[in-house]
Amino acid sequence: MTALTFERERPIRFSDCDPAGIVFYPQYFVMFNGLVEDWFDDGLQIGYERFVAQRRIGLPTVRLEADFRGVSHFGDKVKLALAVERVGERSLTLRLQCLGAEGDLRMQMRQVLVTTSLASHQTIAIPSDLREALHGAPQATTTP
Amino acid sequence: MTALTFERERPIRFSDCDPAGIVFYPQYFVMFNGLVEDWFDDGLQIGYERFVAQRRIGLPTVRLEADFRGVSHFGDKVKLALAVERVGERSLTLRLQCLGAEGDLRMQMRQVLVTTSLASHQTIAIPSDLREALHGAPQATTTP
Amino acid sequence: MTALTFERERPIRFSDCDPAGIVFYPQYFVMFNGLVEDWFDDGLQIGYERFVAQRRIGLPTVRLEADFRGVSHFGDKVKLALAVERVGERSLTLRLQCLGAEGDLRMQMRQVLVTTSLASHQTIAIPSDLREALHGAPQATTTP
Amino acid sequence: MTALTFERERPIRFSDCDPAGIVFYPQYFVMFNGLVEDWFDDGLQIGYERFVAQRRIGLPTVRLEADFRGVSHFGDKVKLALAVERVGERSLTLRLQCLGAEGDLRMQMRQVLVTTSLASHQTIAIPSDLREALHGAPQATTTP
Repeated sequence: MTALTFERERPIRFSDCDPAGIVFYPQYFVMFNGLVEDWFDDGLQIGYERFVAQRRIGLPTVRLEADFRGVSHFGDKVKLALAVERVGERSLTLRLQCLGAEGDLRMQMRQVLVTTSLASHQTIAIPSDLREALHGAPQATTTP
Repeated sequence: MTALTFERERPIRFSDCDPAGIVFYPQYFVMFNGLVEDWFDDGLQIGYERFVAQRRIGLPTVRLEADFRGVSHFGDKVKLALAVERVGERSLTLRLQCLGAEGDLRMQMRQVLVTTSLASHQTIAIPSDLREALHGAPQATTTP
Repeated sequence: MTALTFERERPIRFSDCDPAGIVFYPQYFVMFNGLVEDWFDDGLQIGYERFVAQRRIGLPTVRLEADFRGVSHFGDKVKLALAVERVGERSLTLRLQCLGAEGDLRMQMRQVLVTTSLASHQTIAIPSDLREALHGAPQATTTP
Repeated sequence: MTALTFERERPIRFSDCDPAGIVFYPQYFVMFNGLVEDWFDDGLQIGYERFVAQRRIGLPTVRLEADFRGVSHFGDKVKLALAVERVGERSLTLRLQCLGAEGDLRMQMRQVLVTTSLASHQTIAIPSDLREALHGAPQATTTP
């Protein structure tokens, strides 16, 4: 099992849900994007806005694999959790989970991000401050 | 000036913003929808999810007037504030504001909501528990 | 009655709708934003992307008034319609409507846009090519 | 190479894009959701709205794998394409692609959907009319 290392709770909003009354699945990715922002700000102490808007470094997703195991309803309180699985030269692999109040898994994904120049949209090496912060961050010890 | 009565802070997310790097204006309405949910849950103690999903009462907007006074950038911490302006037989008028960290007004709106049956989409009288909770809520004393 | 001057049909998507099975109201503004893009491209022949991304001119909304008259359900085919109500020095007032297949009014709004520099977010005079294109466009003859 | 079987063109909207000026990646899933709706309506002749809203059959995603190969900018005209990869007892595997105007691959995914009862959120067998329509649909002949 993965040692997840950054967590936030969040209510499922009316605006997250579809006519079936459950989370519209692309909205999970929006939620996880917010989790990564919070992790950069509060976990890594890097400052996501400064990283992206001022230093002009992008973090586009190049690959993701997602499994949807249970539905989340409007009004649920869910936990979003994140762990670093691998730090490469120009890429970062995260594992992300959405869990219900009872700890039941709703959705999980593995996401590979790369660091890019927002001027050229070309990949660049992970900046040294981010690399150091990532090595300080508790990492996933095994890969399920 | 209006006595605003329910407030929440919120960061401006990457996903709230457009290619100009500022809040895409429809997103203010999504944020305010979340504020109304929190107000029902934490301010009025009515429970928004139970109200909508279980009691099957809708709160559609029938009228809104919005003024956009300043831009909100990705990474800003904003305050969302809400006050009751008028309680009618089947309608509710709210005033909502988004303020920057310095208290500068970014956007404000007046929103008229009606209570409806979600079975018929017809208006219904405001339920008595909501009416009582609204009378307990501090109200806007003047209308700008 | 206003002479509406640019129209597009559009299906109501699953992703436009909320747990009540009807359009989540902020989504009307997203739809109208798309209509304005199409109008710039196909009606005014100005090219919205070039205008915004290359010429770096913004079109933020400074004021809107919206009335919601009927609900739109998932699967409906709606008509989105736009008319120019007023061309100012630095602003543009539009009237926008969403109509059902029977011509029944679902939602309408008056929207005031300003032209801005995306570098400074300050207002600028409407560029001459846009002004000329707007004078060529059929305008609303009366104001309801 | 897969024989893709249903296609639609679509402009990249301002509202699809993030502060980097490119498609915010969750928005690809929203676009593909719209493609599946169009495919049900125009390709399979099943009627997505009737299927979901009237027959109360859900099509939740249980698994997806996505690769992002190139960025899509605001103003691009993209082609969205869909092919059936596998029809199971209660599941359906699709391959979806987003291509640029030059046929360059921007993003592709494999998506596994299941048919469910929207009353219980439990899986059900693929209804016979959908199964027949799927067998009529040109299928992917090889898997890349």
